[in-house]
Amino acid sequence: MVSPRRPVTIYDVADAAGVATSTVSRAFSRPGRVSAETAARVRAAAAELGYRTEAAHRAMPSGGTGTIAVVVSNIANPYYFRLIESIQSAAQAAGVTTAVFDAQESGEIERDLLNRLLPIADGVVVSGSRISDRAMRTVAEKMPVVVLNRPVQGLSCLVPDISVGVRATLAHLRQLGHRMITYVGGPAAAWSDGHRWRTILDNGSRLGMKVNRIGPYPPTIAGGRSAARKILHYPPTAVLTFNDLLAMGVIRGLDAAGVGVPGDISVVGVGDIFGADFHAPPLTTVAAPLRAVGAAAFAELSRLMRGAPPSRNAAFGLEAQLIIRGSTGPSGAHRRTGDALAGTPLCKFPA
Amino acid sequence: MVSPRRPVTIYDVADAAGVATSTVSRAFSRPGRVSAETAARVRAAAAELGYRTEAAHRAMPSGGTGTIAVVVSNIANPYYFRLIESIQSAAQAAGVTTAVFDAQESGEIERDLLNRLLPIADGVVVSGSRISDRAMRTVAEKMPVVVLNRPVQGLSCLVPDISVGVRATLAHLRQLGHRMITYVGGPAAAWSDGHRWRTILDNGSRLGMKVNRIGPYPPTIAGGRSAARKILHYPPTAVLTFNDLLAMGVIRGLDAAGVGVPGDISVVGVGDIFGADFHAPPLTTVAAPLRAVGAAAFAELSRLMRGAPPSRNAAFGLEAQLIIRGSTGPSGAHRRTGDALAGTPLCKFPA
Repeated sequence: MVSPRRPVTIYDVADAAGVATSTVSRAFSRPGRVSAETAARVRAAAAELGYRTEAAHRAMPSGGTGTIAVVVSNIANPYYFRLIESIQSAAQAAGVTTAVFDAQESGEIERDLLNRLLPIADGVVVSGSRISDRAMRTVAEKMPVVVLNRPVQGLSCLVPDISVGVRATLAHLRQLGHRMITYVGGPAAAWSDGHRWRTILDNGSRLGMKVNRIGPYPPTIAGGRSAARKILHYPPTAVLTFNDLLAMGVIRGLDAAGVGVPGDISVVGVGDIFGADFHAPPLTTVAAPLRAVGAAAFAELSRLMRGAPPSRNAAFGLEAQLIIRGSTGPSGAHRRTGDALAGTPLCKFPA
Repeated sequence: MVSPRRPVTIYDVADAAGVATSTVSRAFSRPGRVSAETAARVRAAAAELGYRTEAAHRAMPSGGTGTIAVVVSNIANPYYFRLIESIQSAAQAAGVTTAVFDAQESGEIERDLLNRLLPIADGVVVSGSRISDRAMRTVAEKMPVVVLNRPVQGLSCLVPDISVGVRATLAHLRQLGHRMITYVGGPAAAWSDGHRWRTILDNGSRLGMKVNRIGPYPPTIAGGRSAARKILHYPPTAVLTFNDLLAMGVIRGLDAAGVGVPGDISVVGVGDIFGADFHAPPLTTVAAPLRAVGAAAFAELSRLMRGAPPSRNAAFGLEAQLIIRGSTGPSGAHRRTGDALAGTPLCKFPA
């Protein structure tokens, strides 16, 4: 059996010829658009490396041999495996192998991983990034990068619009009589955390609701348990969390303190992860269309791998929706929780 | 920034010198044990490739730069992320990067992936393999392989002893008054499926229980729903499934037919996956010590990557235990389900 080799990519040729990938692309597809000298240099580099124009396309829709990497912030978060599945499904249809890497909620590990990927992968999708925009741009200079759930100037980014779902959540809670909402924040380095909070802040006051924010918390069940202790200091009538794991942890923490969900406090998560539907109570949550997100991410990465520039609006139409289940209910019951919440300043909810 | 290169491994040197990896290892560690001619050939190959004896060790406990692959049968099965986390945690402590690949329950994809890994990874842990022993040995001739949950003659295999947990399950069900147990089988190509059924068969009759087997079913929630329809034809008093996803699907399918768990039928899974504890009802399940399994898998792979032969008993002491939760209960209630099970031949349970 012949050991398969990593195919020579347009990036290798661009690197060897000292030009941009778009120049390599033009040198082959529209030679008239580059200078004769440049075209010659590109062709020489391509010949030396064994690159053929078809090579870039071989990694694409018809039976290629490329490998893409998917870097996630925490492989133990069930949110990711549905996303990974959807990216992988699109990649597989194109004959491209998907390798998954876990940044373990660490910007340092993420940076290190992204550097180690260079000899392994032809492109990378990064989700839940914790590194700076600048660090991400440095990576993107070396290999095709698609960033999920976070906008980075100049790069290919897919940011499903979560605000539609968050606004629907606030309207849902308003209708159930809730006026005091606590947002349980996730990692400080997560762009999506700040974005969620601003959406709540902007829309909550418009709906006549008092909103406050606690955190940051690790986006895990354990993080949610810690948050529950804080929530009990100034109990709101409803809680919206950064993600479903935090929501599950908050519910356990409240339950341990004798505070029922949704009887005493309503809880809403984000993500619709595995288990959200059979959780006790079933979790009301805000969910992006992960299947479409994964397909769009791979389509955008494929474009980059062929030398195209980043799309301006790759996430068009990808909107998160509210899924109403059993963890939200009428706010009235809240007043009956005097016993469980004895000693906590029910009326001192911060403005 | 310098692009990191895949380090030259003992396998590359063995390949170039036309000798076994153990010979390369001896040529450096105990030169007296190989012929002068062989030692010279190995040293020449190592020099040409830029291999240093420390190189193999660099990928090990002190700050290496290697990459290992973990191939799982279904990345969307929550069983795997706890396993992946534990392998990754051990690898990270050794400075080794972990890349995860999904074989999607397909022997064909698994074989293809394992071949594509050669230029990417320095070694691989395969869990939930669906390829033949022979195909696995062919892979192991090319790179270090550790096989989880399945014995393959001549290779490094970690097979936690699930029989302790299965026997405990049967004893638990016997004590609750159950005499008719159905085993819901997983993939026909899974070694562990046959092993589980044989353990049930051997021990069930010893305990005076009637056992039967249905399947194979895909090891998913959807597979469990299908199994539930079959279960309702000859309802037992208790069900043991190949894995937790099947158990969750069986419970949903029974629930949809108005059959309660554990009121009418008790259900036991295998794996203790994410969600098993907050499932409604909480799932009684058989679980291996995944943290220890992951650490042992990486330790064994490290040994192979240093040129050592496969261990004989790498899984020593790794025993699965029964975790009793809410999906099992007394069998007596079973007789009250006449209505829900109307028309089904309650007494015709096959021997």
